[in-house]
Amino acid sequence: MDATASGAATARHPLEAATALTWHGDRWIGRTSKDYWAFVGQYGGATAAVLLRAALDHPDRIGDPLALSVNYCAPIAEGEFQIVARAARTNRSTQHWVIELFQQEGDVLATATAVFARRRPGWSHAPTQMPQVPPPSQIAAYKVFPGPSWLDQYEMKFVLGQPALGKMPHAEPQPAETMLWMRDAMPRPLDALSLTSMSDAFIGRVFQVLGVLVPFGTVSLTTYFHCSADDVAAEDGWVLGHADAAIFRDGFGDQTVRLWAPDGRLLASGVQTTYFREPAAEGK
Amino acid sequence: MDATASGAATARHPLEAATALTWHGDRWIGRTSKDYWAFVGQYGGATAAVLLRAALDHPDRIGDPLALSVNYCAPIAEGEFQIVARAARTNRSTQHWVIELFQQEGDVLATATAVFARRRPGWSHAPTQMPQVPPPSQIAAYKVFPGPSWLDQYEMKFVLGQPALGKMPHAEPQPAETMLWMRDAMPRPLDALSLTSMSDAFIGRVFQVLGVLVPFGTVSLTTYFHCSADDVAAEDGWVLGHADAAIFRDGFGDQTVRLWAPDGRLLASGVQTTYFREPAAEGK
Repeated sequence: MDATASGAATARHPLEAATALTWHGDRWIGRTSKDYWAFVGQYGGATAAVLLRAALDHPDRIGDPLALSVNYCAPIAEGEFQIVARAARTNRSTQHWVIELFQQEGDVLATATAVFARRRPGWSHAPTQMPQVPPPSQIAAYKVFPGPSWLDQYEMKFVLGQPALGKMPHAEPQPAETMLWMRDAMPRPLDALSLTSMSDAFIGRVFQVLGVLVPFGTVSLTTYFHCSADDVAAEDGWVLGHADAAIFRDGFGDQTVRLWAPDGRLLASGVQTTYFREPAAEGK
Repeated sequence: MDATASGAATARHPLEAATALTWHGDRWIGRTSKDYWAFVGQYGGATAAVLLRAALDHPDRIGDPLALSVNYCAPIAEGEFQIVARAARTNRSTQHWVIELFQQEGDVLATATAVFARRRPGWSHAPTQMPQVPPPSQIAAYKVFPGPSWLDQYEMKFVLGQPALGKMPHAEPQPAETMLWMRDAMPRPLDALSLTSMSDAFIGRVFQVLGVLVPFGTVSLTTYFHCSADDVAAEDGWVLGHADAAIFRDGFGDQTVRLWAPDGRLLASGVQTTYFREPAAEGK
């Protein structure tokens, strides 16, 4: 309704469609999006965003998102899904949510918790400064590789660690670090939903290290928001994203990310733990 | 029973006592520990550990802890508490838990989710190496400051960022970074429970930056485990802990931590978001 109201020529943004929810008394009903499809099931960033939205749009909600933790239990099949979001605790200035997504009753596909908070403007200090990099206008756009549809939803300009994937693994593991400017390919004001999705918009660190695609998925993702809703809306859509990994061990790895506004403010940060299958030994 | 079986002179370890749970058909009953007391309510690391234990000791549990996210909703009063832990999804090699702690029915004090996984030994790679520091034997033990009881449960030897707290804030914000060797003051083999507790065993970053104590608490804590139960048990109890912060903004800040074994393996890592109240302006 919002989209059509702003003009017949304006298509609804893919992220609005992917996170659209209708209220059915005790639960939300949503639908997976072909625009955010990954190798197996829906792109985790879109799933995280719709889980957050189930609390954000809930009539009981107070404050702005502060923390979101999502655990991906099983792939979500194309089609309708249901989300139950419950305010487990409401304090004067913080609120704690427990959220679950399923397609068949009792068959949980994702769990999440979220914390919302009313922020009071006050003392701010940033021990970690944004890396000094050229602005997006000075970097060529990069099409990562012909891949799953979710990649098409982002414009990406790599500053560091531009993906170089081939058929054979690198002889030696390469750095896990990536830094890039990114924004929604179809312009959209930044908000907690898009930051959530962007906090997962880095290709698997294991691909970066090995130089090949391997079976891979996010198991758990936590995103912290460092700004109120009003603060974010003022941005022009570009975000400097930084991702790195510390460890790959026995089928699981980590990822640490930061998302900065062009003016140097840290908008969001996060971690994830991922599973991967190592490439088969050569000649096998 | 375990403690007395090993000799009348052996007291039960404070962490065993703090995380002891008895099963009551559909829930666990536990009790807060005076040994892990913080400024307001129980020390968050002990609470996180007992929430993990509710899944770890559950008869349905498979695999080892991979991820734990805890949201602290309200202070836990001294005394008995109840924990309901539910396996929301069990796959072949991973399991997803939803956990809640309360003292009165319907009055949730902490929520948590946990992921467990059966690890298969395989390719491992550590892009981030443990910092080169002197071993604990070469560093003097440090008593942080007369403080809450949880601090007494740890032996601490600071490599970097030894706390220097006074009555007046520093003229300029100081670095948020801390590096220290730590272990249980009463020896205890490392496991996921002690790593969970240690992942919260850094004094508030905001104290470090400001040089004074201010009202402070952890809101959300996520800990990732990078080793199987067998791997950890072999350690001698010392862990090199590293903590840093990127941002303090409008009453909330972050913290990033890593816990390394003396042999250089990353055992656990984590993030937390914290609330704080800034010190009153001078003269007020």
